[in-house]
Amino acid sequence: MKACVLFSSGKDSSLAAILLEPFFDVELVTINFGIVPTYEFARQSASRLGFPHNVIMLHPSLIGEAAAMLVEDGFPGRAINYLHQSALEAVCSKPDTAIVADGTRRDDRVPMLSPAQVRSLEDRHNVKYIRPLSGYGRSAVDVLVDAHLQVVQGESDTVQKADYEVELRSFIRKQYNEGDSMVERLFPRHTQSRVTDRKHL
Amino acid sequence: MKACVLFSSGKDSSLAAILLEPFFDVELVTINFGIVPTYEFARQSASRLGFPHNVIMLHPSLIGEAAAMLVEDGFPGRAINYLHQSALEAVCSKPDTAIVADGTRRDDRVPMLSPAQVRSLEDRHNVKYIRPLSGYGRSAVDVLVDAHLQVVQGESDTVQKADYEVELRSFIRKQYNEGDSMVERLFPRHTQSRVTDRKHL
Repeated sequence: MKACVLFSSGKDSSLAAILLEPFFDVELVTINFGIVPTYEFARQSASRLGFPHNVIMLHPSLIGEAAAMLVEDGFPGRAINYLHQSALEAVCSKPDTAIVADGTRRDDRVPMLSPAQVRSLEDRHNVKYIRPLSGYGRSAVDVLVDAHLQVVQGESDTVQKADYEVELRSFIRKQYNEGDSMVERLFPRHTQSRVTDRKHL
Repeated sequence: MKACVLFSSGKDSSLAAILLEPFFDVELVTINFGIVPTYEFARQSASRLGFPHNVIMLHPSLIGEAAAMLVEDGFPGRAINYLHQSALEAVCSKPDTAIVADGTRRDDRVPMLSPAQVRSLEDRHNVKYIRPLSGYGRSAVDVLVDAHLQVVQGESDTVQKADYEVELRSFIRKQYNEGDSMVERLFPRHTQSRVTDRKHL
């Protein structure tokens, strides 16, 4: 049975795919909003992981709406959730999709669907939504990442991956006056990771 | 790396073990409180699944305390949580235990640790607590059970397995006047499953 895994080229979505691999036919799916062609990074990582990879293009207006939420809120939680829900809706809407997964973890706050949103997604699309890392804390994830993945890590601006933040940052830089300083203010500094290879045991 | 999976011989804990098998050295652990030798069923199921199996005996007084909670509350939630926490504490206390898992699912209410209880368990024992089915809803679990397990199902009284309820029921029947009718009243009727074999693909 095929399982579509939302894939950013980061370690969490890569590990989610690896956890499902013994039990499902995994296909990686990267969402892109037409602002930055980040799917190229995802394609490279997917190839190194050894999974088939597809890209779904969504309308740039979704990034515009998310940017407006972000500017209004002053922090990215609602905007990232909005883009993640749009991504899940898009993957669930693909024909013949029965299982959809992502790399969200036990201790993640964002992106995260509420239990009611999960039920709604599953019922409307007749899909099973699986979060393989939902029962894994940070140190358990670290053990598996260390065993299975080669990763490059760094500040958000230096590691290129296919996550929502890269396109959001780019959009805000271009569309808003003082976009550069807004990006600095709106996104908390944090470390990003991109998978560069798989360790075959 | 070894992972100890709390094992009742039911389909959820069996599936949790199967999900971890490609990534860890799985060892099944069944808890028994000395009231009913339910670990014999667990030993049979573990053998058919092909995993090593151990039994940890805990003091019968824990069942007595849980029974008192159950009688006071009128429903089994707090009592089952108490026994599950006692079981996790026991497994985490075994020497050289680094990873402990159980078969609790996304939609389970009981047994369930709070996020604070999970952090406390992991920090005090220096273990990683993994819930492999935490990101799986009922229909996703059903797909995997159907693919991997032979299961016998029936009412709680007819399917013999190694869960807390079997020993709690037996204790209450023996220790309380009108124990039979109390058991009828205190435990909601529900279907139990015991794994009888593994489907090798």
